[in-house]
Amino acid sequence: MQSRFQHIALIGKHHAPPTAEVRQQSYAAFSQIACYIEAQGGTAFLEKETAAFTGMEHYPTLSMQEIGERCDLVIVLGGDGTMLGVGRELAQYNTPLVGINQGRLGFVTDVPLQTFMGPLSAILAGEYEEEVRSMIHARVMREGQCVFEALAFNDVVVNRGGTSGMVELRVEVDGQLVANQRADGLIIATPTGSTAYALSVGGPIVHPTVPCWVMAPIAPHMLSNRPSVIPDSQEISIEVIGGRDVAANFDMQSLASILRGDKILVRSAPHKARFLHPRGWNYYATLRKKLGWNEGGITP
Amino acid sequence: MQSRFQHIALIGKHHAPPTAEVRQQSYAAFSQIACYIEAQGGTAFLEKETAAFTGMEHYPTLSMQEIGERCDLVIVLGGDGTMLGVGRELAQYNTPLVGINQGRLGFVTDVPLQTFMGPLSAILAGEYEEEVRSMIHARVMREGQCVFEALAFNDVVVNRGGTSGMVELRVEVDGQLVANQRADGLIIATPTGSTAYALSVGGPIVHPTVPCWVMAPIAPHMLSNRPSVIPDSQEISIEVIGGRDVAANFDMQSLASILRGDKILVRSAPHKARFLHPRGWNYYATLRKKLGWNEGGITP
Amino acid sequence: MQSRFQHIALIGKHHAPPTAEVRQQSYAAFSQIACYIEAQGGTAFLEKETAAFTGMEHYPTLSMQEIGERCDLVIVLGGDGTMLGVGRELAQYNTPLVGINQGRLGFVTDVPLQTFMGPLSAILAGEYEEEVRSMIHARVMREGQCVFEALAFNDVVVNRGGTSGMVELRVEVDGQLVANQRADGLIIATPTGSTAYALSVGGPIVHPTVPCWVMAPIAPHMLSNRPSVIPDSQEISIEVIGGRDVAANFDMQSLASILRGDKILVRSAPHKARFLHPRGWNYYATLRKKLGWNEGGITP
Amino acid sequence: MQSRFQHIALIGKHHAPPTAEVRQQSYAAFSQIACYIEAQGGTAFLEKETAAFTGMEHYPTLSMQEIGERCDLVIVLGGDGTMLGVGRELAQYNTPLVGINQGRLGFVTDVPLQTFMGPLSAILAGEYEEEVRSMIHARVMREGQCVFEALAFNDVVVNRGGTSGMVELRVEVDGQLVANQRADGLIIATPTGSTAYALSVGGPIVHPTVPCWVMAPIAPHMLSNRPSVIPDSQEISIEVIGGRDVAANFDMQSLASILRGDKILVRSAPHKARFLHPRGWNYYATLRKKLGWNEGGITP
Repeated sequence: MQSRFQHIALIGKHHAPPTAEVRQQSYAAFSQIACYIEAQGGTAFLEKETAAFTGMEHYPTLSMQEIGERCDLVIVLGGDGTMLGVGRELAQYNTPLVGINQGRLGFVTDVPLQTFMGPLSAILAGEYEEEVRSMIHARVMREGQCVFEALAFNDVVVNRGGTSGMVELRVEVDGQLVANQRADGLIIATPTGSTAYALSVGGPIVHPTVPCWVMAPIAPHMLSNRPSVIPDSQEISIEVIGGRDVAANFDMQSLASILRGDKILVRSAPHKARFLHPRGWNYYATLRKKLGWNEGGITP
Repeated sequence: MQSRFQHIALIGKHHAPPTAEVRQQSYAAFSQIACYIEAQGGTAFLEKETAAFTGMEHYPTLSMQEIGERCDLVIVLGGDGTMLGVGRELAQYNTPLVGINQGRLGFVTDVPLQTFMGPLSAILAGEYEEEVRSMIHARVMREGQCVFEALAFNDVVVNRGGTSGMVELRVEVDGQLVANQRADGLIIATPTGSTAYALSVGGPIVHPTVPCWVMAPIAPHMLSNRPSVIPDSQEISIEVIGGRDVAANFDMQSLASILRGDKILVRSAPHKARFLHPRGWNYYATLRKKLGWNEGGITP
Repeated sequence: MQSRFQHIALIGKHHAPPTAEVRQQSYAAFSQIACYIEAQGGTAFLEKETAAFTGMEHYPTLSMQEIGERCDLVIVLGGDGTMLGVGRELAQYNTPLVGINQGRLGFVTDVPLQTFMGPLSAILAGEYEEEVRSMIHARVMREGQCVFEALAFNDVVVNRGGTSGMVELRVEVDGQLVANQRADGLIIATPTGSTAYALSVGGPIVHPTVPCWVMAPIAPHMLSNRPSVIPDSQEISIEVIGGRDVAANFDMQSLASILRGDKILVRSAPHKARFLHPRGWNYYATLRKKLGWNEGGITP
Repeated sequence: MQSRFQHIALIGKHHAPPTAEVRQQSYAAFSQIACYIEAQGGTAFLEKETAAFTGMEHYPTLSMQEIGERCDLVIVLGGDGTMLGVGRELAQYNTPLVGINQGRLGFVTDVPLQTFMGPLSAILAGEYEEEVRSMIHARVMREGQCVFEALAFNDVVVNRGGTSGMVELRVEVDGQLVANQRADGLIIATPTGSTAYALSVGGPIVHPTVPCWVMAPIAPHMLSNRPSVIPDSQEISIEVIGGRDVAANFDMQSLASILRGDKILVRSAPHKARFLHPRGWNYYATLRKKLGWNEGGITP
């Protein structure tokens, strides 16, 4: 085989200390995948912390930065959360990612571990669908200074604390006032995030190629405050003008100490993530399976 | 006039320290109402803290307990929140309440201060509609002990903190499992509370005489977790089985320190509040005005 | 065995002409059930049209009226629709019903045919949960005359035709104006119907013992026109004040020729249906299964 | 003045026969506007049917085709419906449109008649915001033949008749199955249409520059069938696979005779409409006013 991908990194979830069972399973999974890559003529590397987590430190390992600089493909083992986390870290390198799930189909981790060889072989041979997903670049501005910044694949959320009343937010888009909102909070989601938190507050499902954000209030005070879809070329500013214990959340990262007068600025990140899927993959098939939509004929 | 109400208490909002302007307005409003009652042959009392708040300590004053024991009518000046707070405190005495608003129509404070004399005169003469509203009696159980209890007119809410993930709740009704829910939180609302927080997460508007609770999840993980309506004769148990920084809120009272394993028990309070409205009042007219529903002919 | 039920009628779906296969399956099912009843010391009758439908005319048969007058239990084989249809027809006789499903769990048809003997035996011995469900009595009034009336277990729907614009409806409850509504239509649902059509337009799930109707607009023009819950002791009047090709639907029965000025009056039917369930049955368990709610622990 | 627009057509609503009062009002309005244009050095024409409708046949008149070919600006007097109708008819000519409303702010008819001179003068002088809105090109295919085609500014709707059950639709996007849907119907809306019918079934508000369609089911059978947003570069195919009395609606045009097996194909129309707004116009300000969103400070 002459693969277009020669240096391939393997990355897994490595944040919580693993049980012996999880460690064992991960070891088995990564070994299989690494062997398969070598058999296909490629060179496999383990991400350093993944190697420590699974006890595979005898393999060649690389840091995330080294992976970004040296590898031309990354294989992620895990769920969508793990995949998006890796995508965030490697965004600036433009390295394509393949997601292998351990039994539960994800939106972006769609190769099942149990039958990974066929799809992976095809992908290595250049037979794949490439999908590009956009990210949010968010900044928290305080008195004109940026005090925090983050990338988000799913969403940026500004919301109230557990025992406080509504937050009051002044939302502007490209400098134009949209509304002052009173609500539990406000979600700005990417198309990727449209099937996550935003969906649970009534937001629409958005195809990943639509260049937009979903802006969805959480428990809004006014019934006419409905989810909206705005171009991702526009910059959203969310100013906190009322409420106590306000927090901002960027995918998994949280910032509890948002003050009155702070502005959360949301714009399109300069880099996008590249995900590779087996040939024939399409978004709607995954969506249908994840949401349990009827596929075949009509039920009586 | 031979009113059926002889001893009448006046109560207002008195929690925040008033500005000079608010103090002045309250003074003027209570003076008018008290004079009017005396002119009608009744005896007016000021609630003690209200008197202190407005600088009317020279009037005859009573404590809340004395009001409950001695007065046969209570007039509340303020919004629905103030009215419901007084109703909660006086629930055990069965004293009827009249609500006078300062310009903004409330669901239960429907006599405008500007034109209070006509409606009040009719009510004092026995010309009124009586409306009975139920309350929730809620307890927080920890290892079999009740560690907190409260009455709630609007709702009991169990929800997550500002930077934590979803809460996981095991909901039972009369000992029957309803579901394990993953969400931002869960609202149990009375019919009174159905037009407050529960409405903003998609709950129905419930007529005050329907003997039920609304159970409405906040941003539920499953799309099929929809608001439901259950008999208020049944006891709801909400056990916290997952999540960090979980809080429980009972109308305005908050309890931040809910632990895994705690159960929040919700049942009908033994007492109900009695609200008097001017003759001709009806719930649907108020609802229509509050929600801005079309009243007249068809708009083109 | 000394059953409390001696004369037992069997009724199935019999409206569409059956295929040979369906006929064969029905024959087998009814034979089993009838034999089992006889073995338990009871007397089984087939409803006349069911007998014709399945080719079991050699069994003792009874008309629906005779069943109502003579039988003390009715067993329905089929889905919820069939069960509710039979309940409607027999409502005035107060005869209890048991529903046996052919594989798909229903809200009220909860005994599976494959394992019917245990549950049925217990029910015959008096070991059951009885559930009472209310019905709507609806009338269409034209120039003061009743031109149509019907019972409905699920809902009464007033809606537009396929190519016409919105309907305009004036809704009153006990003579009080609720609102003029512009929408595709309006659903008045019983608690039974709350999990049917009304759920698909955002109505709440209502426990069958709450004495109420759900009033849910279909695609309302105003965002504040939300589903509401009103006491079933109140009479709802829906007057058609605008729109072309307006139709009214009462469960399965339709009336296409609704005119401007017609009023559809909805009130509680004088009779209720009695459904018997196996001991241990509870509403929430069925609901959880029908809606796919999470039953066990927390999914990761 | 040296306007960039020399030949300017005036068009109004002209479908229903006018009352004397409406005729008089229209006459007055068009006279004013025409005079003002002449005074600014332009040449005003009346659309032929508008002239007949208002009794202004003595003015120079043009047919719609002549307007498209000869005029460099069109002024529409009326509401959004009238404006969109004209936009549809003139789409192929690329002529810009200005909308003057008679008192009720529209999304695209934002110059009030009462104060039209200032904004119109500025627009004639080239001081305007140009907004481009996309349209749907829809075709109904039967046995491989196109039996109907239409342009739609707001939406294409496939739905059931007034007394029939759900429709069953097979939805594909660019040849990929999305889902088989059972519902009252399905709406495909442009961003322009997102604030019309689609909003009333829970669809999102979409900024006009997002290149997408909203796909929103009406009363879907499955709770997971949620509104979605898809790229307008993709072609949607809606095949009718079940249901009686199915109709298709394209903005105001209706087609009642949709048969099982028919496919409604939706794609982006090749032409777009150009709307001119007074300098300083922005979409969010109009949205806020139309939906009654809070503009100023926080309400207590």
